[in-house]
Amino acid sequence: MNFTGRILTMMTWGESHGEAIGCVLDGVPAGIPLQEDDIQPFLDERKPASSRHVTQRKEADRVTILSGVYRDHTTAAPIMMMIANTDARSKDYDAIKNSYRPGHADMTYDIKYGGYHDPRGSGRASARETAARVAAGAVARRIMNQVTFEGALIQLGDLTIDRQRADWRAARSNPLFCPQADLLPSWEQLLDDTRKDGNSIGGVAEVHARGVPAGWGEPVYGKLDALLAAAIMSIPAVKSVEIGAGISSAAMTGDQYADVMKPHKNAIQFEGNNNGGILGGISTGQDIVVRYGVKPTSSILKPLDTVTRDGKATTIQTKGRHDPCVAIRSVPIAEAMMALTLADAMLLNRAKKGEKP
Amino acid sequence: MNFTGRILTMMTWGESHGEAIGCVLDGVPAGIPLQEDDIQPFLDERKPASSRHVTQRKEADRVTILSGVYRDHTTAAPIMMMIANTDARSKDYDAIKNSYRPGHADMTYDIKYGGYHDPRGSGRASARETAARVAAGAVARRIMNQVTFEGALIQLGDLTIDRQRADWRAARSNPLFCPQADLLPSWEQLLDDTRKDGNSIGGVAEVHARGVPAGWGEPVYGKLDALLAAAIMSIPAVKSVEIGAGISSAAMTGDQYADVMKPHKNAIQFEGNNNGGILGGISTGQDIVVRYGVKPTSSILKPLDTVTRDGKATTIQTKGRHDPCVAIRSVPIAEAMMALTLADAMLLNRAKKGEKP
Amino acid sequence: MNFTGRILTMMTWGESHGEAIGCVLDGVPAGIPLQEDDIQPFLDERKPASSRHVTQRKEADRVTILSGVYRDHTTAAPIMMMIANTDARSKDYDAIKNSYRPGHADMTYDIKYGGYHDPRGSGRASARETAARVAAGAVARRIMNQVTFEGALIQLGDLTIDRQRADWRAARSNPLFCPQADLLPSWEQLLDDTRKDGNSIGGVAEVHARGVPAGWGEPVYGKLDALLAAAIMSIPAVKSVEIGAGISSAAMTGDQYADVMKPHKNAIQFEGNNNGGILGGISTGQDIVVRYGVKPTSSILKPLDTVTRDGKATTIQTKGRHDPCVAIRSVPIAEAMMALTLADAMLLNRAKKGEKP
Amino acid sequence: MNFTGRILTMMTWGESHGEAIGCVLDGVPAGIPLQEDDIQPFLDERKPASSRHVTQRKEADRVTILSGVYRDHTTAAPIMMMIANTDARSKDYDAIKNSYRPGHADMTYDIKYGGYHDPRGSGRASARETAARVAAGAVARRIMNQVTFEGALIQLGDLTIDRQRADWRAARSNPLFCPQADLLPSWEQLLDDTRKDGNSIGGVAEVHARGVPAGWGEPVYGKLDALLAAAIMSIPAVKSVEIGAGISSAAMTGDQYADVMKPHKNAIQFEGNNNGGILGGISTGQDIVVRYGVKPTSSILKPLDTVTRDGKATTIQTKGRHDPCVAIRSVPIAEAMMALTLADAMLLNRAKKGEKP
Repeated sequence: MNFTGRILTMMTWGESHGEAIGCVLDGVPAGIPLQEDDIQPFLDERKPASSRHVTQRKEADRVTILSGVYRDHTTAAPIMMMIANTDARSKDYDAIKNSYRPGHADMTYDIKYGGYHDPRGSGRASARETAARVAAGAVARRIMNQVTFEGALIQLGDLTIDRQRADWRAARSNPLFCPQADLLPSWEQLLDDTRKDGNSIGGVAEVHARGVPAGWGEPVYGKLDALLAAAIMSIPAVKSVEIGAGISSAAMTGDQYADVMKPHKNAIQFEGNNNGGILGGISTGQDIVVRYGVKPTSSILKPLDTVTRDGKATTIQTKGRHDPCVAIRSVPIAEAMMALTLADAMLLNRAKKGEKP
Repeated sequence: MNFTGRILTMMTWGESHGEAIGCVLDGVPAGIPLQEDDIQPFLDERKPASSRHVTQRKEADRVTILSGVYRDHTTAAPIMMMIANTDARSKDYDAIKNSYRPGHADMTYDIKYGGYHDPRGSGRASARETAARVAAGAVARRIMNQVTFEGALIQLGDLTIDRQRADWRAARSNPLFCPQADLLPSWEQLLDDTRKDGNSIGGVAEVHARGVPAGWGEPVYGKLDALLAAAIMSIPAVKSVEIGAGISSAAMTGDQYADVMKPHKNAIQFEGNNNGGILGGISTGQDIVVRYGVKPTSSILKPLDTVTRDGKATTIQTKGRHDPCVAIRSVPIAEAMMALTLADAMLLNRAKKGEKP
Repeated sequence: MNFTGRILTMMTWGESHGEAIGCVLDGVPAGIPLQEDDIQPFLDERKPASSRHVTQRKEADRVTILSGVYRDHTTAAPIMMMIANTDARSKDYDAIKNSYRPGHADMTYDIKYGGYHDPRGSGRASARETAARVAAGAVARRIMNQVTFEGALIQLGDLTIDRQRADWRAARSNPLFCPQADLLPSWEQLLDDTRKDGNSIGGVAEVHARGVPAGWGEPVYGKLDALLAAAIMSIPAVKSVEIGAGISSAAMTGDQYADVMKPHKNAIQFEGNNNGGILGGISTGQDIVVRYGVKPTSSILKPLDTVTRDGKATTIQTKGRHDPCVAIRSVPIAEAMMALTLADAMLLNRAKKGEKP
Repeated sequence: MNFTGRILTMMTWGESHGEAIGCVLDGVPAGIPLQEDDIQPFLDERKPASSRHVTQRKEADRVTILSGVYRDHTTAAPIMMMIANTDARSKDYDAIKNSYRPGHADMTYDIKYGGYHDPRGSGRASARETAARVAAGAVARRIMNQVTFEGALIQLGDLTIDRQRADWRAARSNPLFCPQADLLPSWEQLLDDTRKDGNSIGGVAEVHARGVPAGWGEPVYGKLDALLAAAIMSIPAVKSVEIGAGISSAAMTGDQYADVMKPHKNAIQFEGNNNGGILGGISTGQDIVVRYGVKPTSSILKPLDTVTRDGKATTIQTKGRHDPCVAIRSVPIAEAMMALTLADAMLLNRAKKGEKP
């Protein structure tokens, strides 16, 4: 089961401790300038070991393009991108191979696949698979140059940003994607405390897509809201998705929520964006606003009750190298998933509208 | 763009003020007992004018099966179900046909379709389309008889249930799907006040799917969480989706969140269900728990600023018959979308596992 | 399982002796002029009882559009079209309901569906289903007005046309789609003899699509040749498909087969069209040429050995009203399937190219 | 555009003169024994330079499995297989890079992709891509161990086998897949003459799939005939597909064509297999018989008229290393495409039937 746009289609492959991971991206139009250097910066943002606050697995995460690009332009043929795995330490997992780690897919994979799945480093269920998504997302960005993404972590554990003091662009200047400079120290303290405690915490992130013109998305089942929700919810550990005002809209009245409109220089100007840039499933021209919550990392050093594969009671501590808060590195992944979803919506809209790119 | 499972596929058709609406459901196995009477009760739950708290449009919503069923059993051929539109009042919409109602798809459809869409009663964007989903969902329920759904409204405007006092089964005994008897009067008062004020409110609902065995759902992009999120977010006015503890998991630590396991009578017993019955995208055997927020109805009698189709400033009041809170009638719709998603996951799992039905 | 273009998607529904048959066509762009009168002429061409040479089942085959069209233009919403069944005579099939008719799907449906399929008039396997395809094909033609179709029967039983004496346009002026006026009497005689003998015969038909510009179709698995082959082979009783010179190209040498090119008025002029208008799976701008063979009608009055559902030897004669040669009425069906395939290829090409319609 | 079964999905990637080619195969059930050695023999059958009668490009065609297999069993994760390109000679193509070779995709790709496609060795349109299909087909065979394939060339140029003298199993003992020992010398002579003449010839091949049980395939648009036709027609140079008696059935009468049935040891025994093992699109339990015609190789040394990319008249001779008859090496490719199609049909049937593997 892979990401399947109607036109842009991505298949990722590879396991955490196999030789390599990668993806094949099909449906990219011909003639788009593309080199490995266009992709690498996004991989670097998601890379492990980039600060003490994330997993210390050392991976260069260098991407190699093996097909679909000729003379630094896309050819419309499938683009295969590969990233080597160089720092796998499968034996870290020996102690736990016969017990189900709470919060992990160990138990469900074992039941579904009869024990045949690759358990090393969580195999296919590892967040390592998301490096391939980031590579594909970088290509999707090139398809729609006018669209930019601004993502940030807005909550770490129980510490939430104050939107009045946040500067969205500042999120990229620190390894925690924190948009509020004066909050950063307390977030770092919380992470250090959590790590030392052998524990983990959750978080909330928000991504804005700027420059999406009105008209992308399809009604009813192809709504941008629905496609974005699926794309984001497919990221490991994500357990909620909101569009615009999201869950808080439930407590509003109709007149509070309404994004009223005014004419402005031959265009429509909205006052407010509670709808998150989407009406009837179709983009309005405003920023697309997506917010999602990430559960605390399941791998913790604290002992937890669980069962063995043969049904006995046991206790488990998850060794290995883990992010204390997977929400942090989720930001470039979420941007990539949004880019893939929006690029496909653009191509599909063009099929019906016949717009020039 | 229609609901497309891998095996179970639904295409809905019809506009709010056309002659009829309906759907074609393909991929249903042969031999499942099915009559119109199996479907009608679910349509009745979602039916307009069932209380003073919902739209007063009068529709019998009688479903007719036109294909795919023979001698009261499914034949594996596409099942076409039709529901007549009998109480359309298109002229209610005359006053607004040249202005964009805030929160509605008027503006985005107009831009996307160059003015060719059917605007009567919001046409294809109307929540009337969801009657077809409920019919299809009723068939999906029959495919997996062991699974039951319990949905309820858990928040109306800013009035939230107290889970200690809620009885989930009570939700079906009142027209507001309220699971807490002593809260019902204040909810009714809030609705009456809102309606009299010409305003609307949002709400939050939660559905539990019981009896889903471990092993349904696919990894990575076919995760149950992702597919359920898309299915629910495709319902009109839904703007957030959560699985299990959802957004609240962000503030938890790993040891607080962990659903630890114990052996119990040759099976695995979980303590807690923060993961909402899904690990690694695959069902655990616990209840699947989905929660979603619904924005306040966009059609209100209060005047709102907006623009006309030709770009002039104007004010708009939405006449016609509308639900003061669309979250209420969303409950049977959400159950239907979950049933379609889960039935497809069951069929896909069977393809790979070879389980007997 | 339904026709699934990447953008244009058709789901047909209905059985031969049910109340009605029809289809839902999704993916049609907005703003295309469309009325029932645009569709009816194509249905009339395929209609039963239009001459003594085809089945005498009397069906008006009037199409009703129930959605997706507003003020005589498409709205981009799914188009539902319905055709009533008015002359079903299920009791003609009573004698045979417990025996497998050779050449029919009786045995395979029974095994696959455990006896739950609708056997009346062959149910879903009946060629009656193809009326819905013709209706959908008529809409597909409107999407690409520049493309026209010219189909004809080129072989009836063992009587083959002489291409030197054929006038392709004459095929539409007789009920046998015969393009050679002086051959028509012998074809009619052959059909009369066959019918009186209680037997049936096969045939070969050929369809040319004119006006397809260069560039439609996708490489490798989305080749126009491949998609057209699937579309044509899905028509009941079709057992071979050829593109251009087709099977005869096997006996040619490379220099004989080569469609050489010359410049002509700023364009490329091909000498020959052995490739049938497709190179590398993509249209060349020449006519798309598709030829297919149809097996003799399986329903004949001659007694044939067969087995009963419970495995006993028996003999069967198929009563009911049948075409002595189903190849005849296949011509408008094949044109419809080609139109659906090409319209989808056009939309998909536009997605990637950004051409104006 | 890639091969897309409903459950088994293959995406191939790579160009003729890129670093490597390969495929990702998704939807394979877990627990199937699989090693590279299971795949290599099929690649060896299709390998270039295996005799003087095929292209002399030297490729070891060693397959490497990079994901989806753990401890020599499938894990249900996507299987990525890679084959290096080691003997690309791009400069052979320099002379022709500005002219359109007749019969090739040069002209259509150039128009479709605006000149951005990779032209080296025909790039993506090269038959080299089919090595990846053969690798995937080898995995598909493992999914349904009870099914075997017997393919042979039955016509080379104008030399056709005598079925009375053919021994199907002998086809594998010579490099021409010739099933008739006494015909082999004249085929070799024809190939030698053709090669010396700088020309090419076409051919016809036939593949039988044995051991397919009754019930695989879906009605109407998912007919096995239709899916097999698309799969086979997607092979480069294939221009016709027939099922069973195929094109010859057109000249038969209904009683001649009928595959009558008799009971035999609690099973149904057919007399004759004109339907090629498929009725109503569903397998009957007989051999699935597919025949297809291959056009003569487009690359010949004889000069042919053509046009340059900028529209001037010119003459072209295709240098490089080419098969004088591409029909020969098509046999293992066709078997692979049938295996992929049938394995997907098996998985889909299981989804609805719930059969044990």
